[in-house]
Amino acid sequence: MPPTYTIGVDFGTNSVRAVVIDTTNGSTAGTAIFNYPSGTQGVLLDPRDPHLARQNPDDYLEGLRSTVVRALAQADRVDAFSRSRVIGIGVDTTGSTPIPVDADARPLALERQFKNDLAAHAWLWKDHTAAEEAEAITALAREYAPEYLAPIGGTYSSEWWWSKIWRCLKVAPDVFEAAYSWVELADFIPATLPGVSRPEDIVRCVCAAGHKAMYAETWGGLPSKEFLFRLDPRLAALRDRLYAAAWPPGRPAGQLAASWAATFGLAEGLPIAMGGFDAHYGAVGSGIRPGTFVKIIGTSTCDCAVAPEGLGAMTTIPGICGSVPGSIMPGYIGIEAGQSAVGDLLKWWVEGICEGNEALHTKLSAEAAAMPPGASGLLALDWNNGNRTILVDPRLTGLIVGQTLHTTRAEVYRALIEATAFGARAIVERLREHGVAIDRVVCCGGIAEKNDLFMQIYADVIGQPMLIAGSPQTPALGSAIAAAVTAGAEAGGYDDWHEAQDAMTSVQERRFTPTADAVAVYDRLYALYRRLHDGFGGAAGALDYSQVMKELLSIAHDAR
Amino acid sequence: MPPTYTIGVDFGTNSVRAVVIDTTNGSTAGTAIFNYPSGTQGVLLDPRDPHLARQNPDDYLEGLRSTVVRALAQADRVDAFSRSRVIGIGVDTTGSTPIPVDADARPLALERQFKNDLAAHAWLWKDHTAAEEAEAITALAREYAPEYLAPIGGTYSSEWWWSKIWRCLKVAPDVFEAAYSWVELADFIPATLPGVSRPEDIVRCVCAAGHKAMYAETWGGLPSKEFLFRLDPRLAALRDRLYAAAWPPGRPAGQLAASWAATFGLAEGLPIAMGGFDAHYGAVGSGIRPGTFVKIIGTSTCDCAVAPEGLGAMTTIPGICGSVPGSIMPGYIGIEAGQSAVGDLLKWWVEGICEGNEALHTKLSAEAAAMPPGASGLLALDWNNGNRTILVDPRLTGLIVGQTLHTTRAEVYRALIEATAFGARAIVERLREHGVAIDRVVCCGGIAEKNDLFMQIYADVIGQPMLIAGSPQTPALGSAIAAAVTAGAEAGGYDDWHEAQDAMTSVQERRFTPTADAVAVYDRLYALYRRLHDGFGGAAGALDYSQVMKELLSIAHDAR
Repeated sequence: MPPTYTIGVDFGTNSVRAVVIDTTNGSTAGTAIFNYPSGTQGVLLDPRDPHLARQNPDDYLEGLRSTVVRALAQADRVDAFSRSRVIGIGVDTTGSTPIPVDADARPLALERQFKNDLAAHAWLWKDHTAAEEAEAITALAREYAPEYLAPIGGTYSSEWWWSKIWRCLKVAPDVFEAAYSWVELADFIPATLPGVSRPEDIVRCVCAAGHKAMYAETWGGLPSKEFLFRLDPRLAALRDRLYAAAWPPGRPAGQLAASWAATFGLAEGLPIAMGGFDAHYGAVGSGIRPGTFVKIIGTSTCDCAVAPEGLGAMTTIPGICGSVPGSIMPGYIGIEAGQSAVGDLLKWWVEGICEGNEALHTKLSAEAAAMPPGASGLLALDWNNGNRTILVDPRLTGLIVGQTLHTTRAEVYRALIEATAFGARAIVERLREHGVAIDRVVCCGGIAEKNDLFMQIYADVIGQPMLIAGSPQTPALGSAIAAAVTAGAEAGGYDDWHEAQDAMTSVQERRFTPTADAVAVYDRLYALYRRLHDGFGGAAGALDYSQVMKELLSIAHDAR
Repeated sequence: MPPTYTIGVDFGTNSVRAVVIDTTNGSTAGTAIFNYPSGTQGVLLDPRDPHLARQNPDDYLEGLRSTVVRALAQADRVDAFSRSRVIGIGVDTTGSTPIPVDADARPLALERQFKNDLAAHAWLWKDHTAAEEAEAITALAREYAPEYLAPIGGTYSSEWWWSKIWRCLKVAPDVFEAAYSWVELADFIPATLPGVSRPEDIVRCVCAAGHKAMYAETWGGLPSKEFLFRLDPRLAALRDRLYAAAWPPGRPAGQLAASWAATFGLAEGLPIAMGGFDAHYGAVGSGIRPGTFVKIIGTSTCDCAVAPEGLGAMTTIPGICGSVPGSIMPGYIGIEAGQSAVGDLLKWWVEGICEGNEALHTKLSAEAAAMPPGASGLLALDWNNGNRTILVDPRLTGLIVGQTLHTTRAEVYRALIEATAFGARAIVERLREHGVAIDRVVCCGGIAEKNDLFMQIYADVIGQPMLIAGSPQTPALGSAIAAAVTAGAEAGGYDDWHEAQDAMTSVQERRFTPTADAVAVYDRLYALYRRLHDGFGGAAGALDYSQVMKELLSIAHDAR
């Protein structure tokens, strides 16, 4: 029997990518990428406000069309492939990226009157204009509904759903009034392909709802009208036009509409998988399951784990950004953690401070790789962009200690990598302390793909082998897996997520194993890191720092 | 009546300078400089040991001859000048720079058999080969003679007299055995000019003896034979061939010998002032007196104060490198403090990390000058080269806190300057707490001469106007003042040091006055600096650091 295929479409920050995947082995039959044409690398900016980041919904639709058409055309060249063997489409996107839509589920930005109004466009995940709204939501929830904050790490973010919608209400009331409803990009695309024309009919994923919109079945869905009323009566009124239920992935978001079927040259009625966030479907495409921890390492890091549902207390692991039942895969609590600056921290050092480029990254990385762990006497906190997990405090900053007059830029470079690894270890330890098994770590993302030094340091600091996901496009692959499971075994897909993952995901032969000597040095350094972390981060009371520099010198002495 | 003149000769690390000074107003009639020809910029190095730094005594003699001859030739062109009006010569040098000499008071290095033996040369102040000897001396003194350490800050240094001589004994016993005695460079030159030919006849300055050799009248001069015996019996034996008494400046070290008089074209028998360290005579040339604090700011900083003798407890101000009766001027306790990296800290950042040059120094300085105090949110500890005062701990290291992903190299540059200013303020406060009056601060040295931003920050942090010494060569001027006082009023000089200083020293019109707004910001930052300083430096027990980053962000917010 010839294989079946699914399509995964991954909407990133600057581009969209479609892949056509062989469901029997996860291999790629076709792929295409589309760079968003609007704004700066696809992001609409406001020169007067550096916090603003929007996107043009038209880019999404054009990207969807363009990439799927071209990926299929490429797949056509594969002998075993036939368009009739395509059994479904899956979609992942950035988030929280809410879009205001009219009563026909059509983005306001596509209407002539709002074409030039940035508030009517998609509010991209990294838009930070709603900082004061986020603070007010956090403050209100702490007072009236602390349960809302428990699954999301205790602090509501300016990057999230309600902050942005409330901000829109304040700064662009005409847009807010014109919006019949709002929809996450992750739900919008899966609703577009079936041609959903009423916001009420959009199938909402619990991934966005639970992690970004304070949705939980336990309190009856979205935050109560009473709560929203205290923010603004118009938000309470909007609640009726949003959604009453959100779902784990696995059920179809709809069936492919005739018009899109014609555009793609695919069968009308194909099942469209529910959307999900790129990190979550990336975790699926990396083989996430109980015990397997997935780290997506790029400019920042997103960590995902799944744990069996029913471990009551575990849904509120202190300091973990999110624990939402069903958010990554049905049947498990989806757990999300993250570090706010990883690649960005090195970029700051190399480009911001040393004023170098990619070649300097390579040079410093080579120099740093030649140094024994601990030999520099340096130790850093990785908080130049705050701490997302486990302190959940954006108002923390960086720290480097141990400098001498001979400290080199390569030594600092290495210390910054180590700092992010210590931050990663703090997350792993916090999860384990709360009963989340982690016995296998799979990494993906740009840094995992390219930076061997980085990965070796992670293996040595965390004391666990670092595996690298087999696919360089794990989110798109995860979407294709979701499509295969949504289609089901009867259609040539899978009924079981793990069965699909076993067939469609892999890890590279390139892997990084802890070395005993380095592990021992890093255990000493990590003890000091935790001391700084807990003291400066406010997780401990008064601490004695008098031996920190001495202990760093001893470690350096022993290492040299 | 035409003016009288004195000659000041300043032996620095890389060169020697002579000045011919008008004793009526301190103006310079002639000057000449001589770069030591040996080694690397005058320093003999060992490629196998980066801690080694020696000098060729022949360079000193050649430099003495060359500079005085040329400075006088230049003075000859001044109308009022006549060689018959020269009334004395003064000398200052680096230290502790001990030289092994034979029974004729001649440096061993000048003898053929030791010409190529680095151990037989002058052990330059910054030679750090004797680290283990220094530690052993400190340990022994703590156990058997803690009084020896009280006036020198509690720790004996590898840069000092006994550490170096003991080191020589260990690594070059033949040199040690051949040395009849040892002499500080500061005493060697003033003994050379009169042609002293027996080590017993060398007049030793209490400046070197008290600050570097644990000499004090209270315990009978140099450390006891019993003490030295515990280090090594041969050191105890050497004690008999060193000196029983050391003196404050003011008395002559001898009279100019006929041969030197002929070389210089000066009168035989001219009084030669006792030698002193460059920092101490630099303080004299900057107008030091009770209440006037002198800061010599260069790669590192040396601070000097004088206080009336008899303030008993004050001779042992905790954490102050040295308090020695008569070491700077007779009748006062000479107090010396210092910071181990000031210019060097900026050099590390600009040249070591940013890989820039003088032009980048200028650029960063200009950018940093445009920033309001506190606006960067950064705070640093200035300990990249340890802390000399007030923690007296070479095993402390640097720290920078408050970095974001937007932190610039110019912001760090400014934070490092501020860190050294906070360190300077800690010294001022420590002295004041122990009754040393400081109501006027005069700065000299390369940074004081050239860096306005630096000096303004010091004024704002210390909350005191920063005056700049009128002479760019305060050590040589101070030596000339010492010569004028040694010659005495009857010879056309002075009987009183302050009278000489009033006539011969000045401050520039360029001065830096504290600005109220900046003072207020720096008071907030200094409170945080002290928290880090005391906690990491071990001067306090456990401290709460949870608000450090928050407070820095608040200060930055208020500053912007």
